[in-house]
Amino acid sequence: MTSAYPHLERRFAHIRALDQAHGLLHWDRETIMPPGGAAARGEQLAALERVIHEKMTDSALGDLLDEAEGGANLDLWRAANLQRMRRAWRHANALEAELVEAQSRAISAGVGAWMEARSASDFTAFLPAFEEVVRLSCDVAVAKGEAFGKSPYDALLESYEDEVTAEEIDTLFGRLAAVLPNLRDRILEAQAVRPEPQLPEGPFPAERQQALGERLMTLAGFDTTCGRLDVSAHPFTGGATGDVRITTRFDEYDFTSSVMAVMHETGHALYEQGLPADWAFQPVGQAVNMTVHESQSLLIEMQASRSPEFHGHAAAIMREELGGSGDAWDAENLYRLAIRVAPGYIRVDADEVHYPLHIMLRTRLERALIAGDLACADVPGAWNDGMAELVGIVPENDAQGCLQDIHWSAGLFGYFPTYSLGALAAAQLFRAANEQVPGIRPSLARGDFTPLLGWLREKIHSQGSLMSTHALLREATGEGLSTAAFEAHLQQRYLEA
Amino acid sequence: MTSAYPHLERRFAHIRALDQAHGLLHWDRETIMPPGGAAARGEQLAALERVIHEKMTDSALGDLLDEAEGGANLDLWRAANLQRMRRAWRHANALEAELVEAQSRAISAGVGAWMEARSASDFTAFLPAFEEVVRLSCDVAVAKGEAFGKSPYDALLESYEDEVTAEEIDTLFGRLAAVLPNLRDRILEAQAVRPEPQLPEGPFPAERQQALGERLMTLAGFDTTCGRLDVSAHPFTGGATGDVRITTRFDEYDFTSSVMAVMHETGHALYEQGLPADWAFQPVGQAVNMTVHESQSLLIEMQASRSPEFHGHAAAIMREELGGSGDAWDAENLYRLAIRVAPGYIRVDADEVHYPLHIMLRTRLERALIAGDLACADVPGAWNDGMAELVGIVPENDAQGCLQDIHWSAGLFGYFPTYSLGALAAAQLFRAANEQVPGIRPSLARGDFTPLLGWLREKIHSQGSLMSTHALLREATGEGLSTAAFEAHLQQRYLEA
Repeated sequence: MTSAYPHLERRFAHIRALDQAHGLLHWDRETIMPPGGAAARGEQLAALERVIHEKMTDSALGDLLDEAEGGANLDLWRAANLQRMRRAWRHANALEAELVEAQSRAISAGVGAWMEARSASDFTAFLPAFEEVVRLSCDVAVAKGEAFGKSPYDALLESYEDEVTAEEIDTLFGRLAAVLPNLRDRILEAQAVRPEPQLPEGPFPAERQQALGERLMTLAGFDTTCGRLDVSAHPFTGGATGDVRITTRFDEYDFTSSVMAVMHETGHALYEQGLPADWAFQPVGQAVNMTVHESQSLLIEMQASRSPEFHGHAAAIMREELGGSGDAWDAENLYRLAIRVAPGYIRVDADEVHYPLHIMLRTRLERALIAGDLACADVPGAWNDGMAELVGIVPENDAQGCLQDIHWSAGLFGYFPTYSLGALAAAQLFRAANEQVPGIRPSLARGDFTPLLGWLREKIHSQGSLMSTHALLREATGEGLSTAAFEAHLQQRYLEA
Repeated sequence: MTSAYPHLERRFAHIRALDQAHGLLHWDRETIMPPGGAAARGEQLAALERVIHEKMTDSALGDLLDEAEGGANLDLWRAANLQRMRRAWRHANALEAELVEAQSRAISAGVGAWMEARSASDFTAFLPAFEEVVRLSCDVAVAKGEAFGKSPYDALLESYEDEVTAEEIDTLFGRLAAVLPNLRDRILEAQAVRPEPQLPEGPFPAERQQALGERLMTLAGFDTTCGRLDVSAHPFTGGATGDVRITTRFDEYDFTSSVMAVMHETGHALYEQGLPADWAFQPVGQAVNMTVHESQSLLIEMQASRSPEFHGHAAAIMREELGGSGDAWDAENLYRLAIRVAPGYIRVDADEVHYPLHIMLRTRLERALIAGDLACADVPGAWNDGMAELVGIVPENDAQGCLQDIHWSAGLFGYFPTYSLGALAAAQLFRAANEQVPGIRPSLARGDFTPLLGWLREKIHSQGSLMSTHALLREATGEGLSTAAFEAHLQQRYLEA
């Protein structure tokens, strides 16, 4: 071990602790902060960001990295840790301070403009702020591309998915584009001959839904001594080491949406709770990327919780916690409700069959925006054309269309593809788990996630950032990321069951 | 204005934002953090402390202070701000890093040892850790004394009360020691001829007590869009600018203790919510010291909320929120319960007549400890002798005696006197407010704090750290801190009403 390496561990542990402080204050802002705290909270978060940036761009840190990389051999974990340190350093040092500041200001203005424009469904009002964010995102893409030796869009992807390239995404999404529309049509036909599932009649008070959520997440393995469930406008997973906080929102007239949001965030949380404790404050001890993170949420939500085995068990718990009775509470009806497929305008409400079509549209448009092949002003038209082609319906207004997502206004280009890469990985991992561990599905039918969670802990969670997407999947499933398991899963769930 | 001064404002605003982040994470730890988060939370808080210390001891900061102090004239607020900056700088730079670290380690060990020793009522087990904390606190006192040109104990006081000296405390407490024991005896005699007040029979669920607390704190002027009420093991006021968070604990069998804890913390919170918004991130915009802070909590709790006028109004609200009926809910009974006087072992449970006697004991012993005139091993004996002399009762064990408070194990020497200095100031301010503003008491009888709060906003809250204790009191009441109003208050409430 070189003498520089231990110094690096201390510096990164210090930065990580500050980053966790930032994460907790962000969580607090989204959940329990009174409105009067907003302005000062902005100052607190900005101050932490500034300190973290100072620490990451301190020239002594670069010198230590150079020294450690030129030094004696490190063991597997330390070597991977050093690589992840360099990666974080590269991200922090790739951009001139002026560009970072200009982008940060453009994003603040962009998100503000987007919120107002979405309420009013007024794309024209959004356009100037949007153009500024896109312009600066292109500058960032070019600068990062040069620093990382990647194409501009691949350089943006790299923040969320550090291995799978735009070219591979073309291949994977190309395959989905070839099979999904036809598959979707057959699923809708098959579904049409069955009776329409009934939504149990509410209202169901938030406290009862909270109790239901806590019971189900605990069944899935969430450790409530090391985390919490709270309410926010948009569900997310946050918190810190030993303190993983998930959120949901409660619709008194549709408890099923909150139940599945809880299971989705529980998948993220199980990953966080299962990361290697010895490396908690080091880069290699963090979740590796958004593809793998989303694979864990979708594995728990879409693969396990919506499996007929577990859903049958959960139906009884739903009836018990919410005091339900009558036909709508029949396990078969609740299951059909949970896997109902229907085209819609809104990505976050989409079923797993339509979801990748929404993602393909966004990926196509954001790549064209970053390449300069699509003008911001032409986004609404391109969006509606894409919806007609991919989903078969055209939004009635831009609020239901290109204004629905926060991502672009916040400069999050390259993020969308990881949702569907995660869906592919989730199907692949769930299939492999079932092949390798006997009895996972029968256990789920008894409400027991232990065999599944044990496999995930070993193959994914405990690996931290030791391996990236393909290597992690290859170790766990025998092959790199592909669409095969996802296709088979849709076929099996919707056409053969 | 010198060119250095604006740089100082920016640096101190940055530090203040980090300090608020620290405060919020501390609040979170005491209220809602799951137990699994404790270890990482320690790292997050320590990382923030380290960054703040780095910023405060940066040599460029000292240079800027020198330059600004030698520069052109500043206006009143900026000049006071510069003084408060220098004061904060002096505290951060008075001690060698090794001493700060050694003290920090001794305090961690001391608090841990104290918690165990208190549960077991085992002073001997506490002694070694206690001796180490006292030894290092003496070193700190000497070093700060040299840096500030004060006596060692005055240098410790300075962290909590920057003006009133040990010598003045001798005078004030000497006067109290001369009058309180006799006054207390007469109060107990007068009370003995009245029927014993009855505690309404519980249980009262926490949610109902929370609703009661929120209603009463809002009446007092707490702005719930800029703050929260939560639960913690020990009530405190925390949070940040625009986000002032108070806590209480609920005893299902004695709602009166939680009601008065809420009003106490509300007094602290009103001060925080009323600080000058333009100076929110500057030293001069903060609460000036613990004496004044405690004067605000005790003014709202002891003077206003326990006044017969407001308490009569509050009694009706208590009945309404808790659904009470019967003799114990009679306004007169509830009032007698709220102002009941009785000797006891425990400071935090003491009535306002006995409370200063508990403080005198602690002040006497901690001054002897810091002066080297009392050995740690002799504290239990000295404690029990002092209790016999001042309160007239002797604890049955050290858990009820010298082990009851966390302060000394945490190195908080010089803090105790501010509780009673605050009680004196509270009486003095409430008397002046009633003299200067007609109708404060009749308004309180209608549940209206507006006239009182308006006066406090103008005279105390909006002043931030512009003036220190005596000057602030002189501006508001015409005289520096004295015992006169407090004595008159006890005489009036307990012997003349």
